[in-house]
Amino acid sequence: MPSPMEKNDFPVSNIRHFLEPGPIVLVSSQWQQQANIMTMGWHMVMSFSPSLLACVIAANNYSHALVRNSGECVINIPSAALVDEVVGIGNCSGSEVDKFQAFGLTAGEASKVGAPLINECYASFECRLHDAAMIERYNMFIFEVVKAHATPSADEEESLHYRGLGEFMLSGRSIDRATLFKSSMLT
Amino acid sequence: MPSPMEKNDFPVSNIRHFLEPGPIVLVSSQWQQQANIMTMGWHMVMSFSPSLLACVIAANNYSHALVRNSGECVINIPSAALVDEVVGIGNCSGSEVDKFQAFGLTAGEASKVGAPLINECYASFECRLHDAAMIERYNMFIFEVVKAHATPSADEEESLHYRGLGEFMLSGRSIDRATLFKSSMLT
Repeated sequence: MPSPMEKNDFPVSNIRHFLEPGPIVLVSSQWQQQANIMTMGWHMVMSFSPSLLACVIAANNYSHALVRNSGECVINIPSAALVDEVVGIGNCSGSEVDKFQAFGLTAGEASKVGAPLINECYASFECRLHDAAMIERYNMFIFEVVKAHATPSADEEESLHYRGLGEFMLSGRSIDRATLFKSSMLT
Repeated sequence: MPSPMEKNDFPVSNIRHFLEPGPIVLVSSQWQQQANIMTMGWHMVMSFSPSLLACVIAANNYSHALVRNSGECVINIPSAALVDEVVGIGNCSGSEVDKFQAFGLTAGEASKVGAPLINECYASFECRLHDAAMIERYNMFIFEVVKAHATPSADEEESLHYRGLGEFMLSGRSIDRATLFKSSMLT
């Protein structure tokens, strides 16, 4: 069974640190009495301040209506150790399965949104719908990240990056090129 | 000096294989007699067919006007061996520097757009502006990928994934979980 991870506050303006490398994420949502989790790979940082994030949640996903009706979700980053949960969650529907229970995940209370955190993920970003203009045309949601949480060991976690056809790339080593940057570019 | 890489046609509906893992990319563009390259980390796959891609190109980037005026660009993926070029390109402006010349990169002819390919990258995606509705508000361009090119050894290339503050994560090993997927999900 996956283990919960303690998390601390993390600056919302710096979520690029976790999301810009492109990890697969788990989106948790709640509307009235229904909660759900979906696996998502299509997301993009858009702005630091406000902290904006675009993502695509297809209309045939059970989570689409929960996120759209509540105007909220939490974007959680699972470590590579959760790969089988990530795949399982992406291959069943919240219309038939209680995914928290089925995959041994636990819901934590968010501080600014009604959607639950996923305790077993190493980072969680509470999101409020910022702009619904592109939902009808592209299933694109633009969120503002209103609160961020990360475990202190987050930088040692391996992330999962989906390539399609059942294949995941794992994050590798990091390299530092800060000395080659203009100071104004070091955000 | 970086070396050119021979590339073959690649299916436009499958560019997720390269882009969904979240690599940093080089955007090449051309408008009238001006060509430029910019480093970009904010992009997202949106749809397989048509092959749509969203990205953010800030208005203060020299490339913004070239892409907007021409309605075209090429999105190229550099390997980790090009990290210093990637950083250098991101830390100077096309208004002052001919980036192809300054960074030892060569322009290849695209087949469907006027913008040049970057021969030294291992994959290149020719893009046409599909929807300009979000440019004013968010600097968000929605492109259709109209032609894709990839070197046969692309899967062995290390990609660069930016974390901010001058730090890049490199792509690591891959794992296969196809047997856990429903066949309808194996796209």
